[in-house]
Order: sequence, then structure tokens, then C-alpha cells
Amino acid sequence: MPRKPLFRCVSLIGIGLIGSSMARAMRRDPSIAGRIVAAARTDKTCATVLRLGIADAATTDVVAAVKDADMVFICTPVGACAEVARAIGPALAPGTIVSDVGSVKQSVIRDIARHLPEGVAFVPGHPIAGTEHSGPEAGFAELFQGRWTILTPLPGSDRGPVDKVAEFWRRCGSQVEVMDPAHHDMILAITSHLPHLISYTIVGTATDLGDDLKAEVFKFAAGGFRDFTRIAASDPVMWRDVFLNNRQAVLEMLQRFLEDLSQLQRWIRRGEGDKLEALFTRTRAIRRGVIEAKQA
Amino acid sequence: MPRKPLFRCVSLIGIGLIGSSMARAMRRDPSIAGRIVAAARTDKTCATVLRLGIADAATTDVVAAVKDADMVFICTPVGACAEVARAIGPALAPGTIVSDVGSVKQSVIRDIARHLPEGVAFVPGHPIAGTEHSGPEAGFAELFQGRWTILTPLPGSDRGPVDKVAEFWRRCGSQVEVMDPAHHDMILAITSHLPHLISYTIVGTATDLGDDLKAEVFKFAAGGFRDFTRIAASDPVMWRDVFLNNRQAVLEMLQRFLEDLSQLQRWIRRGEGDKLEALFTRTRAIRRGVIEAKQA
Repeated sequence: MPRKPLFRCVSLIGIGLIGSSMARAMRRDPSIAGRIVAAARTDKTCATVLRLGIADAATTDVVAAVKDADMVFICTPVGACAEVARAIGPALAPGTIVSDVGSVKQSVIRDIARHLPEGVAFVPGHPIAGTEHSGPEAGFAELFQGRWTILTPLPGSDRGPVDKVAEFWRRCGSQVEVMDPAHHDMILAITSHLPHLISYTIVGTATDLGDDLKAEVFKFAAGGFRDFTRIAASDPVMWRDVFLNNRQAVLEMLQRFLEDLSQLQRWIRRGEGDKLEALFTRTRAIRRGVIEAKQA
Repeated sequence: MPRKPLFRCVSLIGIGLIGSSMARAMRRDPSIAGRIVAAARTDKTCATVLRLGIADAATTDVVAAVKDADMVFICTPVGACAEVARAIGPALAPGTIVSDVGSVKQSVIRDIARHLPEGVAFVPGHPIAGTEHSGPEAGFAELFQGRWTILTPLPGSDRGPVDKVAEFWRRCGSQVEVMDPAHHDMILAITSHLPHLISYTIVGTATDLGDDLKAEVFKFAAGGFRDFTRIAASDPVMWRDVFLNNRQAVLEMLQRFLEDLSQLQRWIRRGEGDKLEALFTRTRAIRRGVIEAKQA
């Protein structure tokens, strides 16, 4: 006889790259969810979801999508979390767990928590995984394999729901770490948000060189530029929301980066090769740390 | 009966990632070179080259290495080109072709051309290919496959040697483009040198956050940072020389990048989401250009 799944019914509000990868991971391992309901903004996306067979039901009505759920993941861009929470709040049954997958945690906690009724547990989360593609067709079950998911539970919250959300992510292939939301926002500002900001900027700079040069920039992209174009192809709305909602940490990391860049600029201008070489030798060693952490 | 190879004897001065990949490509296609001689700085590297079987002879004596060659490729960091050219110049037989693989072309032309005797043709070149690894063991025959090699012949130089060097690269799997050295240095400053400079900087910035945070930066590198650590793991001496020798173009592109970054900084500070989204939508489209140019 099959064991009872971790959740009776999981509702995914938003079914883009992350939501649809979660759906696929649940399809792969039936011990996670008895039923999967997806909410999307358009009928067209709902039809795609049903065609892909990654959810048992798909609807544009977020209230209907959470009605029978004991686990709700909000998988929209972080700027839409407040509106979703306000809409679903009154429809959530006591005992339901609500989580999210947003790349910023302090603003999401501020936007979601106040709309949830008593008896509903909120476990903010963030799987550190992604690609430059978006939409329900871009997802794949292995997206979270070997990656980390960070949970940032609120002070004083019950252990039970946190453990269940952690178990969800482990069954999706992820490792789980718990931390303070402000710390999360700072770590992600340097490891993810600033790299994206810089990639968007440099790809913009290259494009502004003029149409005649654009073809050459594409052609000779293998010298380093192509990696930046991949990052700068990430979802525009998701990233707009990240920068607006993690403003303080992003601007602080950007300031540090700019100070370091000024120093390099000066070293190049003055021809201080020994200092450049010393820095490059130090950063080369950092790569080993990433490889050893199995995140290369 | 086997056809006569393109070159009787190819000499590779410097046998790191690029030199050793060229040697392997020649081993794969015997129509390129009848004999391969490698020059390295240390006996240890010479022993490695012979053990790998990628050259017929290996020596620390650059003069001996070019004595019988009809084709010499200088594959050292660009800062070492002048010294190599000065050393080998007097030993080159009339009719020999000299080329290089340096990432900067104007400075290399200045450093090499004046040391070459009359009757020796100089065809500056740059294969746009690489990895973050270095040394003779890091090379592989497919490195140049589908990539571009840029040749920047001097005004008034003979067509014959240019055609032969172009043919060399095509047999290594590369496509070939001819352009002006100043134009090369500008295009590479934006597509390769600036991306490396920025990657080195941001990896340095992240590392300076302190030892307690370093482990977390490694762990959560999958959010974008890992691509930067890979680029910032590139050879320190090679890149020191690139920045020192393409100073003007790099500093100009850096200035443009900084202006654009200031604008993004302002948009984030002021919460101008529509402007961020418009830029990110534009850069996303650029990715398609790189994919269509088959350089993704």
C-alpha cells in the first residue's frame, strides 16, 4: 500500500521556470503530493500546463487554486506576492502552510505575512537555482538537484511546518539551510543580484556601441561576453522586482564593487601589473572553493 | 601517397592552454605540420609536453626551437612577446612566417615586428577561444572548433603568408576574419577584456566580505556568481598583460560601462521599475543574437 504523501494537495501560484520545475519534481516523486493545482494569469498558460501534464488542474482563479490545498507555494515574481497573498488569505483553511520561492526575503515577508489568517503557517523560502529561460515549458525536474534552498522562518514560528517545507525541498533534490532573512538578502545581493545587475549593464553597454558593431560583438562573444549575455537573458520582470525589493543590500554591494573597480582602474592606468596579478591569483583560488562546494 | 603538409615544421613558443591545443589540433590532422617543436620556460614543462606526445621535440632554448621552422607561433602571454621576438629574430630563416595568438594586437605588433629580419613575414593573429584552465595539460584539439580567429595583417603585407596562416586556423576548426588591429583591440575590450576585469573585481569584492561569509558565498554561488568565478579563474599573468597592453581601449570601455551602471544605480535608488524592465527586455533579446551567431 502506498504511503501517505507529504502533502494532500499542493497549490502553485505562478507556474513559470521555478513553479513548473517544482511540479515536475512532484510528478517524478509521488511521495510529495497527492494532487497538484496550478494557478496562472492566462488561459493560454493553463492550457500549456494541462498539455504538459504537470498539474492535475490549472486555473486563472487564485482563490479556487488554494481552496483544497494544504500546501501553497507562491511562485510569482516577488513584486506580485502582496497581491496574491491578499487575494488568497481569506480562502486558506486553518492548518494550511504557505511558502514562496522569491529571491528576496525581507520584502516578501513584509508583503505576505500580514495577509495570512491565524492558523496558517508561513515558511518563506528560496531555492538557489535557475536558468535564463522562463515559462512553464522551461522547467525540468532536476533543476534543484544538488542545489541549496534557503528557508527564513519568522521568529517564534512552529517547527512542524518548517520541517515539512524542508522535507519538500529535500525530496525535490535540494539541500536545505535555515537563516535570517536579512542575512539571506545580503548574501544573495553579492552572489546573485549584483552579478545580474552587472551582466545587464555590460550587455547594454556593448549593444549601445552601434548596429555595425553589434554583429561583431555576437560573433566574438566566446571571449567572455557570452556568459554575461546568458545571465542578462534572465526574466526581466522577475529581476526588476528583485532590484526594487532588495534595494538597500544591492546598492550597498554595488558601492563596494564600485570602490574595488576604481582601484583596478587606477592600477591599469598606472600600469601596476604586480597588483593586478596578485588580485587575479587570489580570485583564481576562489574558484576552487566553489568547485569544492559542488556549485561550479 | 600523403600530400605535402601545409608547413614543414611548426614551432610553438609557449605551450600553455592555447599552444598545446594547437599542437593537439595538428596531431589530429597530419596535413597541417610535418613536425612540431615546442619551446617552454622550464625543463619540467618540456618533459610534460613529451610525455603528452603533443610535440616531436621540446626545448627551453627558443633559438633552437625556431631554427628549422617555416612557421613560428608565439603563444606566450603578450607581455613576453617582445623578449621572444628579440631572441628569435636573428635565428629566423628567410621565408619563415611568424604569427602569435595574443589577445591584444596593437601592442603585440609594436613589440614583435621590429625584431623580425627582412624576408620574414609577420601575420598577427588571435583565436577567440579559451577556458579558465592553463598549462599544457589543459589543452584539447577541439578548443577552436566553430570559434573565430582574427588576423590583423600589417598594411602592405604579402597575401601568401596571410592565406597560409588562415588555412592553418581553418584546419584547426576555426573560422577566420581579417580586421584592423585597432578595431580588434576595441571589439575585444568590450567582449572579453571588460567582462574579465569585472569578473575579477566582483569575485574580489565577495571575498573581502570576510572569512565567515566566504563559505556561504561558495555554497550559494549557483545564483549567478559561479559564472564570474569561472571567468575570474583565468590565467593571472596572461590577463595582467592584456590589461596593461590594451590599456586605452579597456579604460574607455570601462568608462562607458561605469556611466551605464550609474544610471542603473539611480533607477534602483529611485524605484524606476519600468526603466529597469525595458533594459532587461532589450538585453534578453541580445542573447538571441549570440545564439544565432553560434557562439552561445
